[in-house]
Amino acid sequence: MTTAEALDTYLAAHAAEIAQAAERIAPHVRRTPLLETDLASELLLKPECFQPTGSFKVRGAFNAVLKLAENAATLPKGVLTVSSGNHAQALALAARTAGIPATILIPQDANPAKIAATRALGAHVITENVTFANREERLREVQRETGYTVVHPYDNWDIIHGQGTAAREILEDRPDVGLIVTPTGGGGLLCGSALAAKSHDRTVKVVGVEPERAADAAATLRTREIQRLPDSPDTMADGVRTIAIGQANFEVMVTRGLVDDVVTVTEDEIGGATALLWTRAKLAIEPTAALPLAAYLAGKLPETRRGDGHAPISLVLSGGNFNPTLISRLLTTP
Amino acid sequence: MTTAEALDTYLAAHAAEIAQAAERIAPHVRRTPLLETDLASELLLKPECFQPTGSFKVRGAFNAVLKLAENAATLPKGVLTVSSGNHAQALALAARTAGIPATILIPQDANPAKIAATRALGAHVITENVTFANREERLREVQRETGYTVVHPYDNWDIIHGQGTAAREILEDRPDVGLIVTPTGGGGLLCGSALAAKSHDRTVKVVGVEPERAADAAATLRTREIQRLPDSPDTMADGVRTIAIGQANFEVMVTRGLVDDVVTVTEDEIGGATALLWTRAKLAIEPTAALPLAAYLAGKLPETRRGDGHAPISLVLSGGNFNPTLISRLLTTP
Repeated sequence: MTTAEALDTYLAAHAAEIAQAAERIAPHVRRTPLLETDLASELLLKPECFQPTGSFKVRGAFNAVLKLAENAATLPKGVLTVSSGNHAQALALAARTAGIPATILIPQDANPAKIAATRALGAHVITENVTFANREERLREVQRETGYTVVHPYDNWDIIHGQGTAAREILEDRPDVGLIVTPTGGGGLLCGSALAAKSHDRTVKVVGVEPERAADAAATLRTREIQRLPDSPDTMADGVRTIAIGQANFEVMVTRGLVDDVVTVTEDEIGGATALLWTRAKLAIEPTAALPLAAYLAGKLPETRRGDGHAPISLVLSGGNFNPTLISRLLTTP
Repeated sequence: MTTAEALDTYLAAHAAEIAQAAERIAPHVRRTPLLETDLASELLLKPECFQPTGSFKVRGAFNAVLKLAENAATLPKGVLTVSSGNHAQALALAARTAGIPATILIPQDANPAKIAATRALGAHVITENVTFANREERLREVQRETGYTVVHPYDNWDIIHGQGTAAREILEDRPDVGLIVTPTGGGGLLCGSALAAKSHDRTVKVVGVEPERAADAAATLRTREIQRLPDSPDTMADGVRTIAIGQANFEVMVTRGLVDDVVTVTEDEIGGATALLWTRAKLAIEPTAALPLAAYLAGKLPETRRGDGHAPISLVLSGGNFNPTLISRLLTTP
């Protein structure tokens, strides 16, 4: 088998998993629209803030939990994860829907609204002595104590395939899209999008965006080795405060070369794009969701041509679980 | 002809006009989605904040301007209106698109962002000595001076038919909707919705919502005579600060009896619903757009049954041209 044939086989297998994920999660997640706005005519926004719990994370969480619950052999005693917030709420909802207990580790300095929302969904939340830096270690400790099954927020193929359903919908709605842009933390959404897009058409570009202060994925792509941040980055984009991408994500992004680029944006660029999405696009998103628009406005995205001309660019707006105080500041500071 | 037959004929004629309006404006307005949210499973939101210029007003404005421009006999020298803001921006955009000059009178205490946006769309804006109380009189003065054609924001059948296209889309997407709820100022959106809904199925209810401080339409419906407020009301719902509904609106609402009810909500209820749409539905709407949800949350809407069971309720979210300072206050005040 040639390298090209091997990649075709790889993409076809993942595309089949993403299609199965789409079917599995359909009763529980929303088919979000693809919106034109007054921002720029070439942009099509995918507002994942409209999902249950307010972010795309339900796509992966429902896929992972429902797949585990599909047969008695894998039916978990409970599910367990560590998350800065949006995956936490999503997993809590998916577990409650499937009738399985959930325990969630949330770093103690995470957005308080996200912690409260996770508890409200019936999950057992642990924040004590959980930091962004020690979270993986604490996860293994709690796993030993409880015997629960870990559903990792991004380094998990079922999660990646679930997240890939958003890009799959984009290309179903508009097969002419030339570039899909997503925020990047651990790489679940970015890699799911890459698998969905490249199996649709190898010429569709896929680009991830991360804060300049959290530029591990960009460094990983450049050096072809997983790069770790010394500590959780201080960025208003609190959905992407992970310190490194996962192994599965590295495989898609680097080994298979399915992500075209990862670009970085400044805090000012993130704040400006957030305010613009609120005031002009009328979408009440969280700053993390503004990463793709920030990159677009800063001229950091590649040219998008497919066939004869310019192709539309789709920005995935990851979620809407904003901190009201931060948003008030962004809206009222000129 | 019996009364029932006369009403059938009336509705059929208006439904035909709304269908023509839909076709006429299609290249210029957006087909907004119908959104499910985490608020309540029976609610379907029609986010008209996603329209060009940020409100449903483009539907009526494009219908009126394009119809005038369709033949040489009615081609206006210019168009002229008075508006507190959203109709102003919509008419400015429609006129620019049709290549016709526009002059807009905006009351001097209107939302400054709306005034600036209207100027940015190329319209000539007059605010000097324009108040909510004297605006009709000032309009006639400027009309005499300029010879421009007045496009009234609500007392105009082309405007009403244009606004009716939103409810028509709701019922195309979900023919099982049992109740359509809209904000009410002059009555354009409410009456357009009533004509679209009742011609679809006489059992679909249509209810308008206005601030308690601006309860002229509720009083008009109750007394069957147009009631005027002594002065423009002081309400955070700045899109519905008109002092009375129009003649055409009275005909639809009262004479023909096509509006089932007009209910009122307090400023606290409006503020609460506004914050909830931002935080839970992730929609960056203006307070006027929250009137329908405020009425729903306060239990002021009628029961909705169609056929065998409960029917979904569709809330029309009129626009997203919010004042950042007010929104910041609503989001950060517990």
